Amino acid sequence: MNATDKFASLLTLTREPFPASTKSAIVGSRPDLRVPVRDVALTNGECVSLYDTSGPYTDATVAIDVRLGLLDVRGAWIVERGDTESYAGRQLAALDDGVKGEENARIAQLRADAAALQRTPRRAKSGANVTQMHYARRGIVTPEMEYVALRENGKREWMAEYLANEERARRVMGNPMGARIPQIITPEFVRDEVARGRAIIPANINHPEVEPMAIGRNFKVKINANIGNSAVTSSIEEEVEKLVWAIRWGADNVMDLSTGKNIHTTRDWIVRNSPVPIGTVPIYQALEKVGGVAEDLTWAIYRDTLIEQAEQGVDYFTIHAGLRLPFIHLTANRMTGIVSRGGSIMAKWCIAHHRESFLYTHFEDICDIMKAYDVSFSLGDGLRPGSGADANDEAQFAELRTLGELTQVAWKHDVQTMIEGPGHVPMHMIQANMDEQLKHCHEAPFYTLGPLTIDIAPGYDHIASAIGAAMIGWAGTAMLCYVTPKEHLGLPDRDDVKQGIIAYKIAAHAADIAKGHPGARSRDDALSKARFEFRWQDQFNLGLDPDTARDFHDETLPKDASKTAHFCSMCGPKFCSMKITQEVREYAAQRGLDEGAAVFDGMHAKSAEFKAAGGEMYIPIRTE
Amino acid sequence: MNATDKFASLLTLTREPFPASTKSAIVGSRPDLRVPVRDVALTNGECVSLYDTSGPYTDATVAIDVRLGLLDVRGAWIVERGDTESYAGRQLAALDDGVKGEENARIAQLRADAAALQRTPRRAKSGANVTQMHYARRGIVTPEMEYVALRENGKREWMAEYLANEERARRVMGNPMGARIPQIITPEFVRDEVARGRAIIPANINHPEVEPMAIGRNFKVKINANIGNSAVTSSIEEEVEKLVWAIRWGADNVMDLSTGKNIHTTRDWIVRNSPVPIGTVPIYQALEKVGGVAEDLTWAIYRDTLIEQAEQGVDYFTIHAGLRLPFIHLTANRMTGIVSRGGSIMAKWCIAHHRESFLYTHFEDICDIMKAYDVSFSLGDGLRPGSGADANDEAQFAELRTLGELTQVAWKHDVQTMIEGPGHVPMHMIQANMDEQLKHCHEAPFYTLGPLTIDIAPGYDHIASAIGAAMIGWAGTAMLCYVTPKEHLGLPDRDDVKQGIIAYKIAAHAADIAKGHPGARSRDDALSKARFEFRWQDQFNLGLDPDTARDFHDETLPKDASKTAHFCSMCGPKFCSMKITQEVREYAAQRGLDEGAAVFDGMHAKSAEFKAAGGEMYIPIRTE
Repeated sequence: MNATDKFASLLTLTREPFPASTKSAIVGSRPDLRVPVRDVALTNGECVSLYDTSGPYTDATVAIDVRLGLLDVRGAWIVERGDTESYAGRQLAALDDGVKGEENARIAQLRADAAALQRTPRRAKSGANVTQMHYARRGIVTPEMEYVALRENGKREWMAEYLANEERARRVMGNPMGARIPQIITPEFVRDEVARGRAIIPANINHPEVEPMAIGRNFKVKINANIGNSAVTSSIEEEVEKLVWAIRWGADNVMDLSTGKNIHTTRDWIVRNSPVPIGTVPIYQALEKVGGVAEDLTWAIYRDTLIEQAEQGVDYFTIHAGLRLPFIHLTANRMTGIVSRGGSIMAKWCIAHHRESFLYTHFEDICDIMKAYDVSFSLGDGLRPGSGADANDEAQFAELRTLGELTQVAWKHDVQTMIEGPGHVPMHMIQANMDEQLKHCHEAPFYTLGPLTIDIAPGYDHIASAIGAAMIGWAGTAMLCYVTPKEHLGLPDRDDVKQGIIAYKIAAHAADIAKGHPGARSRDDALSKARFEFRWQDQFNLGLDPDTARDFHDETLPKDASKTAHFCSMCGPKFCSMKITQEVREYAAQRGLDEGAAVFDGMHAKSAEFKAAGGEMYIPIRTE
Repeated sequence: MNATDKFASLLTLTREPFPASTKSAIVGSRPDLRVPVRDVALTNGECVSLYDTSGPYTDATVAIDVRLGLLDVRGAWIVERGDTESYAGRQLAALDDGVKGEENARIAQLRADAAALQRTPRRAKSGANVTQMHYARRGIVTPEMEYVALRENGKREWMAEYLANEERARRVMGNPMGARIPQIITPEFVRDEVARGRAIIPANINHPEVEPMAIGRNFKVKINANIGNSAVTSSIEEEVEKLVWAIRWGADNVMDLSTGKNIHTTRDWIVRNSPVPIGTVPIYQALEKVGGVAEDLTWAIYRDTLIEQAEQGVDYFTIHAGLRLPFIHLTANRMTGIVSRGGSIMAKWCIAHHRESFLYTHFEDICDIMKAYDVSFSLGDGLRPGSGADANDEAQFAELRTLGELTQVAWKHDVQTMIEGPGHVPMHMIQANMDEQLKHCHEAPFYTLGPLTIDIAPGYDHIASAIGAAMIGWAGTAMLCYVTPKEHLGLPDRDDVKQGIIAYKIAAHAADIAKGHPGARSRDDALSKARFEFRWQDQFNLGLDPDTARDFHDETLPKDASKTAHFCSMCGPKFCSMKITQEVREYAAQRGLDEGAAVFDGMHAKSAEFKAAGGEMYIPIRTE
């Protein structure tokens, strides 16, 4: 069954709360600043609260109608700033949904479903700049920045944990690899990180439904999941469910990579129902508007597409402006040439016209659009390697250096910017990517795809890439774009999306632990304690995927009784190592280290005797 | 369905050869020295030969009867050496299968199935030492060593690949992290590595069916899979199929962790039918012999068990001799105490008797047994951390230092030795484990379980640990013990075993690529080339799991025609980046770098003009 079928088979959105979990909020300096967290109630009476990307969908108290969209989170904050205005917006065209006249009936129906999702767009007033970076550089701490600070901190049970055992805290303290993460994230710290370009808060003024989050090396490592419209005609529930499913398992951002028909209307459905930032690759839609003929692309069509999507509320655009005409021939001797879709489209255009990319020549024009809506740049790596053999070659790094130049131009306009990275990179070449990016892109957030550490794992590339993702996340990458098991093979289905997200949550969390993010360890410690105390339900519920953990356990020990049993089917009752610990604890209570040492010496002498006597004391090996 | 059911449902062994693959042999200096490789025929007429762990089971030309066992590979080599003798061996006892009198009937039936698998055991002649290390130190290159050399080298298509592109070879050259892997592995190199204890060749003289392999940092990183007998009465096919299934997917070693009933007879079935080295944890069987009461264990019972298993042909024993009485109290303040089964059994014994571990006090007696059969030590880490919070603590490292002392004792007896390692270790603490092991254990091969980099992924610990396994493999670990998705939750079933093995083949291969093993890259390059040339069948067949790759692809593009289609359902025909490359190649053919530079300058000027004119040339963003 393919993706379409699996999602189509759903009649309703996935809305069950996580087991033993309730949604709660950390309230900020104003009543309408409420940061969501998921509180997990443990069977021992304790509570662990977790960073929550799932939005209102896991909140049983909220009624949601996908035809109306989500409630507004930050609309008031935007209006209060008084630097934006609402306006008519561009005229919707049939071509926006990739259709010619004859299909209008079908599109009309889809658009009718989206009627109540239409909003009057806002943009910056004449001469104004409404980016979070612009405010930050003027010393303004926005509600979005405070929201991010509270969200990164969470409720801080971890502090007690840390102080509880100094030796452990010292020993497991992470290695930040150049990151500078404070024990407490303040709104002022967020402002400073955004001002210097080391973090971005993707939040288009036309996407007031977004729950603000930050992407930067001094914050938790984030992950992105990609979704796209279905080949056949979609239903609004079906498209929104892809989003809901992705954020349920932990996607911090979602990119809508829709191509083909009705992508404008699908985007209305997605943005209006999304609590996470939405990214797109505008060249995909622009290409549809010229019938798929790359050579026919023009700046005017591309520019119109940027405005169309900015008005809908897309939070960041992947723009391959660093793929320049003179770099293309550098890919000629590669094992796998150009493997970026957007990159190949622009390379084709450049070659056909033998002209420099219009994305490069019009970069400042693009900045003017970005700052009018606060759309962030995700500068695309159109020349990323498609195999380990092509990793870190001149084509890749020439483009990366250009992305660094463009970052400076974007920052001149106070436009928030992150940099996309590879791709396929063997483990020993990963650090060099981070070093080059930090050096040339001035600590602008790095957003990498994987990287895949080997090329021979088709069907398992979520694992081959999670290894690279964890390492580069530790090294300083701010966001990891997930890879599903279907990478290189086909369109991911519902389960593939989940598998890819869980693998990337593992990579991102491993990086946070290694970096020493002060909020990262508490969940591991709480789960380990539950594991050691045989609190099975808590072990399941604190995991990244409670359902699967419980199902795996129940396959062999289904009885409820075994949920408190002091063993599992892996070792069985007789071999459960944890059962012995009580005895060890008692033993340790009686005898301190000195006693231990005394025992040590005593036994040392004893063992010497044994050895001396050894040979004779037992039946020799030879039995005759 | 649990493991038992799934395996029980099999009527026959899995024996299909891999797609487009044929078994061939590299013949050594004597006709009976034939090293198996798997030759994969590509659709472009090329052939890639792969390291093959699957034994005769994937060779359609070989008839196999599990009741008779595999054909002998190295029996003649052992006899030729003239330093061993066959002898009656110990008397088989009902207790060896963990049964009391009343169950003898059932066991009798199981043993009847194994009747033709009984062999007259061999042992060293009086005063002789028959370990590969002993021969190596005397300058003798055994057929086993030559076998290993040929096996590590393979057929060497990689050389052509490497020489084909110097720039690439230089760029992707690995970082050995202290390893010293020659371009060509010679039998003399293998001898030297074994002599200095930096590699072992697990090969009990009573396991002549084994296809020799090496475990050492200067060879390919190996992986181990664990199997165990089923809770219910087993059939011989069922137990052997677990082994066959594990080596089919790439397990280089298999540990039989059977507990409970009929473990002696199950072991006969497994060893006689195994082309890979078999390891065990003898304390498990010894504990069964004393009715599961750790306090009742004695050196005499343990020693008798070692001889029993050595006579059957077990290639290495996990022995937790480094867990000493004075270290136990160091675990008192741990988050998760002692998590090793063998470790907890010995800790319980030490505490109950308040005496030093008999494994430590009798270590030299154990060496005498090991060298009489060439059983290798796998010195167990009974105090490995069970959570990230306990990683690298004093309990763990005190034991590791003791394992270093014991390594010196084992080497005094020329007994081959490897060292077991953790466990649960965050990424930033992994290197310290390798450093400590190298420092205290004198480069004896490190054999680690994972390590798991985080604790919150129950149900996905094969991924959480593959990250750590890849990193520690790159750092110098010689063998990685797999972790399945069921870790911490229950008994792995057939699919879990496969998932765990594939995840670990990924980790091991990522490590080989990063270390720069000269034989590692060729498979990746061949697959990448196939991918780029849209040779789908070759892409599937060169992967770690051809079946899954093909199934994933066919879910969305089932037609045979699409096996040569220049796109897949992920991007579709219009967005396939690879389609553009021919144009890029032509373009590059016409214009060299100079031309590119000229274009660059030209465009640079042009873009300046555009910018100058920019503002006016296009409709301003504000439409009114």
